[in-house]
Amino acid sequence: MIDIPSLLRDLDAVRQQSPLIHNITNYVVMNNTANGLLAIGASPVMAHAIDEVADMASIASALVINIGTLDAQWVESMLAAGKTALSKGIPVILDPVGAGATPYRTAVCKQIIAECKPCIIRANASEIMALYNAAEKTKGVDSTDSSDTALDSAKALAKQTGAIVVVSGQTDYITDGTTIKTVKNGNPMMARVTGMGCTATAMVATFAAVNPNILEAATHGMAVMGIAGEIAATKSSGNGSLQVNFLDELYNLNGDTIKTNIKQ
Amino acid sequence: MIDIPSLLRDLDAVRQQSPLIHNITNYVVMNNTANGLLAIGASPVMAHAIDEVADMASIASALVINIGTLDAQWVESMLAAGKTALSKGIPVILDPVGAGATPYRTAVCKQIIAECKPCIIRANASEIMALYNAAEKTKGVDSTDSSDTALDSAKALAKQTGAIVVVSGQTDYITDGTTIKTVKNGNPMMARVTGMGCTATAMVATFAAVNPNILEAATHGMAVMGIAGEIAATKSSGNGSLQVNFLDELYNLNGDTIKTNIKQ
Amino acid sequence: MIDIPSLLRDLDAVRQQSPLIHNITNYVVMNNTANGLLAIGASPVMAHAIDEVADMASIASALVINIGTLDAQWVESMLAAGKTALSKGIPVILDPVGAGATPYRTAVCKQIIAECKPCIIRANASEIMALYNAAEKTKGVDSTDSSDTALDSAKALAKQTGAIVVVSGQTDYITDGTTIKTVKNGNPMMARVTGMGCTATAMVATFAAVNPNILEAATHGMAVMGIAGEIAATKSSGNGSLQVNFLDELYNLNGDTIKTNIKQ
Repeated sequence: MIDIPSLLRDLDAVRQQSPLIHNITNYVVMNNTANGLLAIGASPVMAHAIDEVADMASIASALVINIGTLDAQWVESMLAAGKTALSKGIPVILDPVGAGATPYRTAVCKQIIAECKPCIIRANASEIMALYNAAEKTKGVDSTDSSDTALDSAKALAKQTGAIVVVSGQTDYITDGTTIKTVKNGNPMMARVTGMGCTATAMVATFAAVNPNILEAATHGMAVMGIAGEIAATKSSGNGSLQVNFLDELYNLNGDTIKTNIKQ
Repeated sequence: MIDIPSLLRDLDAVRQQSPLIHNITNYVVMNNTANGLLAIGASPVMAHAIDEVADMASIASALVINIGTLDAQWVESMLAAGKTALSKGIPVILDPVGAGATPYRTAVCKQIIAECKPCIIRANASEIMALYNAAEKTKGVDSTDSSDTALDSAKALAKQTGAIVVVSGQTDYITDGTTIKTVKNGNPMMARVTGMGCTATAMVATFAAVNPNILEAATHGMAVMGIAGEIAATKSSGNGSLQVNFLDELYNLNGDTIKTNIKQ
Repeated sequence: MIDIPSLLRDLDAVRQQSPLIHNITNYVVMNNTANGLLAIGASPVMAHAIDEVADMASIASALVINIGTLDAQWVESMLAAGKTALSKGIPVILDPVGAGATPYRTAVCKQIIAECKPCIIRANASEIMALYNAAEKTKGVDSTDSSDTALDSAKALAKQTGAIVVVSGQTDYITDGTTIKTVKNGNPMMARVTGMGCTATAMVATFAAVNPNILEAATHGMAVMGIAGEIAATKSSGNGSLQVNFLDELYNLNGDTIKTNIKQ
């Protein structure tokens, strides 16, 4: 069950405070992530230079680390920003894009988790299973497993890391290892728009910037994703229009659209 | 006052000459900047390798330096390209994205101004104030100040640097330190589309490529931004559709739409 | 002549197999290339780190090397990925963006061709002529020549390199140096959307992933581009909406839309 008054309170807080979200993310999604953050009411900044990441993370309300197009230089900056944020109590959110597709991705994720202690890890089922069990292989960055399949790994990973773990899929699962929250909104066409998962990660970061109850914040972030995506999909004839309509729905999300469309 | 016949003459020149605009810009906006340049009739190229920036700048009609996602390697290329363009009389246009947010950004902007002598600096109010007065702080890349507030800093910065300074906002100000031009078109929703300011910078560069009167060129570039954005906003229900509709309006801009919509 | 049953067979295979396409491509187009691949039914991954490109290329069904925003570090990864793919019999597809605009771009293309032996080179007319004859100059990344002009260079380049050479333009030519296939679909407005050529390269890669007859695969890739682009253009009022509508048409492409719209 998602508590609608709490969700609306957080959404209002986002729009009032316009929290600065520092993203060290991949090239593919930067434009859409920035527009998603602007749509919901946050203020995005993308910055990766080792000369400034600590300064930028220090003034941010949350830090997103997304390894989608990682390389050694960027990983160095991710770690520097993440450690700074951790030391200042700024929430760090990890998107382990493609974990399991190459040994390098899996290793970098484990290092980021160890050194930056993200409070949320948001990924698809294949990535979560690969993170928990290195024997799992993923095919690139698209999930080949349903979110249900990954639930046990998600719970175990949450217990192991202390992070809230979010598995996106037909049903989204959000867990601290014990409690499980679910978000049932969404539409399968969303998986055909590149970077929808990355935007979800930015959304959970945005809600973590205004709500210290991270399990709740992550659930609220996934709820706005699912609701906006589901409404947008009914107006879209393909992944091109869905990418555009999704931003418009996020932009216009309010108490009415949330109450009318939320699935409990 | 914007002289409409001069604006139309420049727009025709852009479409006749299709000037090559060399962009060393940030990852977030590259796609939209390129499409904005194609929409108005210019030919965009993005190139940042130290092995080719001097060659590329040499064949361009204008060079845009945008520090949105800077790092040391890119700054080296920005400086090399900018100095080449300067030496060949090719206009250099600077977008100091996030100046004031970190010391690194402010320092890099000052170095680019000193070494590449941009003929136009286009920024939001917070960035202009931070550039003129290092004590100013900006919050990421979004302005927290109105353009009116920055007018004195803009004039002083223009006098200090010799550049035409453009402050975007509800009213856009374009100044050489003495004369002040204004553009009153636009719509507040434009600030919710990432990279609209970066596209504005590309537009002033495009007009500077065809009009040696840089104060006039910068004013014309801001005018097409404001008019296209204002028309597009009336057709858009959020920042997703505005990003798309803006390009369409820029693509279709002509004497009729300009005369009908321009605010003097 | 395009054999429609073979084209439909390949399109079905793409949608059944969802081949993983590894892209080392430019910053400008990454989002659109990924969405184009998702629209047609493939699974895109972007990865450029020297620490993982060989691993990623090894699990891919095709590798796209696109030099649009190259630099020395990325070229090193392009070569490593390309040589791995070559050694494993995975098709390598080259998009020599801006070849001829700077000596660096031309030299890098020649090195990639020599060391990675791409099975397809897809480019615009100016780029193909520059690759075959270093005396040719290109203006940035937009073609200043018609595809007809480049046909002789394309045939000679195909014979010289062993690659299928594809020249995009009003008529697309696909040649192994002897046989010439043509695709007559398309719309001039497509040239005003940045990265349409890059998406075409990703499409020929996708069909090469499911059809070992590379001449046929490249023709099929260009056919779906042309048909989707032509349908989308009739619904678009500028390059903004065309970028979106193109993805939707690619997403919805089927036997009916292909048979109704294909030009032979």
